[in-house]
Amino acid sequence: MNIEKVNIYEAAHGVTEMLKYEKIGHLNDHMLNIIKSEQRTLDFHTHEESDEMFFIIQGKMELEFEDQSVALGPGDFIIVPKGTLHRPVITEPVTVLLIEKSGTLNKGNTGGVYENS
Amino acid sequence: MNIEKVNIYEAAHGVTEMLKYEKIGHLNDHMLNIIKSEQRTLDFHTHEESDEMFFIIQGKMELEFEDQSVALGPGDFIIVPKGTLHRPVITEPVTVLLIEKSGTLNKGNTGGVYENS
Repeated sequence: MNIEKVNIYEAAHGVTEMLKYEKIGHLNDHMLNIIKSEQRTLDFHTHEESDEMFFIIQGKMELEFEDQSVALGPGDFIIVPKGTLHRPVITEPVTVLLIEKSGTLNKGNTGGVYENS
Repeated sequence: MNIEKVNIYEAAHGVTEMLKYEKIGHLNDHMLNIIKSEQRTLDFHTHEESDEMFFIIQGKMELEFEDQSVALGPGDFIIVPKGTLHRPVITEPVTVLLIEKSGTLNKGNTGGVYENS
């Protein structure tokens, strides 16, 4: 048995490529990925099979819904219920921990599954 | 629709009672709880139905397994696979975010389910 801890700040520091999902763990049928970005606005989209948790490790971003926009900063998390229209609006550097069911489609790579575990 | 963000540091600050599970969210069939403690060692136990994620918000604790002990500090997380013998060893103040399937039994309240959502 080899169960290892992960420090999210060190893991975030180790991610150098933008927009690449860096898997740092899995919890039951969910995956934990770190993603960095500094400029990206996606189309509004939904995930029909999974809620999606955004936890801000560093930086800032906005999450837009049909009727509101939520500004997120370090230590903030938000859980987008499955089926809810949303889009991330990123205009400055941000590092995010995403937790969602394995196999959830990333809108930015529509048609591809970015994680198969 | 009212989707609200939660800042984990502010949420942690708001928890004043020791060993009380403070629910701060749910993600699919999982619950997110903050728990504070400053002195507590549980018996070794397993959760047969769910992995268990410990994320340290503030302070320190140890997580003991059959063959190793892992020291956890701020920003560290560890995911205990279902069925794995473990016990938390807490000898100083710590604030932890726990993520696990709803209905998972807390060994410290054996016989009771501390969350029914």
